[in-house]
Amino acid sequence: MTTVNARGDERQHLPITAVIPPGLTTPEVMIDVDVLDRNIARMASATQARGLRLRPHVKTHKVLEIAERQLAAGAVGLTVATIGEAEVFAKAGVTDIFIAYPLWVTESQAKRLRKLTDACSITVGVDSAESASFMGKNLGADAGRIAVLVELDSGHHRSGVHPDEAAGVARAAADAGLDVAGVFTFPGHSYAPGMPLEAARQEDAALRLGADKLAAAGFTVKTISGGSTPTAMLEGDTAATELRPGVYVFGDAQQLELGRCGTDDIALTVASTVVSHHRTDPGEPGRFIIDAGSKVLGSDRPAWASGYGRLLDYPDATITALSEHHATVQWPQGLALPHRGDRLRVVPNHVCLTMNLVDEVAVVSQGEPAGRWRVAARGKNS
Amino acid sequence: MTTVNARGDERQHLPITAVIPPGLTTPEVMIDVDVLDRNIARMASATQARGLRLRPHVKTHKVLEIAERQLAAGAVGLTVATIGEAEVFAKAGVTDIFIAYPLWVTESQAKRLRKLTDACSITVGVDSAESASFMGKNLGADAGRIAVLVELDSGHHRSGVHPDEAAGVARAAADAGLDVAGVFTFPGHSYAPGMPLEAARQEDAALRLGADKLAAAGFTVKTISGGSTPTAMLEGDTAATELRPGVYVFGDAQQLELGRCGTDDIALTVASTVVSHHRTDPGEPGRFIIDAGSKVLGSDRPAWASGYGRLLDYPDATITALSEHHATVQWPQGLALPHRGDRLRVVPNHVCLTMNLVDEVAVVSQGEPAGRWRVAARGKNS
Repeated sequence: MTTVNARGDERQHLPITAVIPPGLTTPEVMIDVDVLDRNIARMASATQARGLRLRPHVKTHKVLEIAERQLAAGAVGLTVATIGEAEVFAKAGVTDIFIAYPLWVTESQAKRLRKLTDACSITVGVDSAESASFMGKNLGADAGRIAVLVELDSGHHRSGVHPDEAAGVARAAADAGLDVAGVFTFPGHSYAPGMPLEAARQEDAALRLGADKLAAAGFTVKTISGGSTPTAMLEGDTAATELRPGVYVFGDAQQLELGRCGTDDIALTVASTVVSHHRTDPGEPGRFIIDAGSKVLGSDRPAWASGYGRLLDYPDATITALSEHHATVQWPQGLALPHRGDRLRVVPNHVCLTMNLVDEVAVVSQGEPAGRWRVAARGKNS
Repeated sequence: MTTVNARGDERQHLPITAVIPPGLTTPEVMIDVDVLDRNIARMASATQARGLRLRPHVKTHKVLEIAERQLAAGAVGLTVATIGEAEVFAKAGVTDIFIAYPLWVTESQAKRLRKLTDACSITVGVDSAESASFMGKNLGADAGRIAVLVELDSGHHRSGVHPDEAAGVARAAADAGLDVAGVFTFPGHSYAPGMPLEAARQEDAALRLGADKLAAAGFTVKTISGGSTPTAMLEGDTAATELRPGVYVFGDAQQLELGRCGTDDIALTVASTVVSHHRTDPGEPGRFIIDAGSKVLGSDRPAWASGYGRLLDYPDATITALSEHHATVQWPQGLALPHRGDRLRVVPNHVCLTMNLVDEVAVVSQGEPAGRWRVAARGKNS
């Protein structure tokens, strides 16, 4: 069959039977390693061409084998969201990790951070004088072993301070003995239709202003860190010195619907089986149930999304409802319904949640099994 | 402080410092074992008083220690959603399990089902002649070791056949050598405001009609199985012989907002820490960030829900946004904002997703640590 991707290119598909290895028990997360490698190489050369360092966010995949590929392709280090994720990757030999989160560092967390610095350069996010002081106090004499980046709010209105306040936070961090290295932001509001360009502009303005404020207060700004997957592939001038995209390794239905990737760029799908057909009235679109539900896809569903994920090989089908082990697929009119037992590839809305639901994934290449990877940092929420 | 639960009862709270043990690193799932035991006992006596068997759905908790408590309180067996879940509980010694799902039983799944029947009575859902025949073929001479219940659609319009078609499915199952034991349905449309009573009525009508059709076709109907948590506690006459509620053990924000439980009935919360404050304009409600995001809460959010979960001890606060490791809390005006580092208990919207995100939970009793339980069937999606 033929489908058209988000960039308008037609492509011929392998028959379904050839893209889901027959030995798989569904539902199962499948990673197409050829697409994955292409995505990793593309982001690596795009950031290199712009003179930017790449520090991919590995909360997306949590897999050692994928981090190795990213580092081999030139990433300067990794970004993680939690101390627990940092521990997994540091133990595997990664030597430069940024925990991009405004941690509230208790005594027990200070102990873990201290241990991490034995063999790894550790940077942590900070977005208040209070949390900087608390972290410094609990790290005690070891505070100088931790670098911090001040988190800026560039319009997502989640964590982060207004760039105006960045120097005050940096001053408190320095007073607490921490090593102030620069600023970072996450333009999460880029995840909406029409927003990537505007969010990138706001991201850039916030980074520029925050860095200027730190410099004016006498700090040496070594790192200006930005970048989500929707904004990282944009071109043009930026104040950033490094980018932290995560989702680009796999792509997902959100990126597809935002036009930030095409179906050819989708490296992760959930293999599923048609288990039940609905009885529908004549003239109604056909509906059926597949065995991939929210416990393997995740249930993120932005208001602008077409549904709870997409079918990679059937772009006109929609997933209209999701339970824990059922997804309801509404089928394009005029196309023959698949049979019970047929297998379909689902593209999750938000791939970071999918990877956090499974302990292992099946790796495939050209429709053939190519091993299994452990999701080593799955569930490391703290 | 004092809060009022969904039934209108006021209650005095323990101070927050007393309900989250200080040793916990957040975010962490906490189970209050006293509330859990009370919920288990209440459902057991309510079903017993109606002369119904209770077969709790353990996809909600996936924990052996909780299943043991349910069986000790009189449950006749367990309900699960997948063969993988059945394997975990059967290995732990459970001898009667219903897999309430319209399985498409391949050869490899038939092998697993066959092995399960060595030490456990196994019942499986079926909702088409085609899947019944396929299952029977793959089970071969062992088909008679598997009992089946015909799944009925009682208005949720997910899987299941119209009760009119039940006898045809049963006939195909019997022809395939399977042991036809009755009918089941899941009134999932009870999860909406004002729906529990109407959904329970439709559930009852579907079960009654489906069972009648089977009896008229000459089958002995041993089991008529229904019941979600919202409908299971309703009183009155029912065609059902057994109920399969799941969520009742913990309660969650959906049940709270549907009025099916009160805050006193909430046995599971996610302990979280305030990590960041927003800058808000004067007159705006205060906003802050806690460290429990979608990777520990799950991101189910029905359109009628107030937000992405609730704060157990602050019923007037709302969770207005959710990222993987951040929840944005909008605070009631006039109430002093909590400090960074303060800890809050979050009630997830859908507790079945929360339990499927963590490998272990902290058990508490009267605000004191009372051990840890492993989520033994976490991630068993197939």
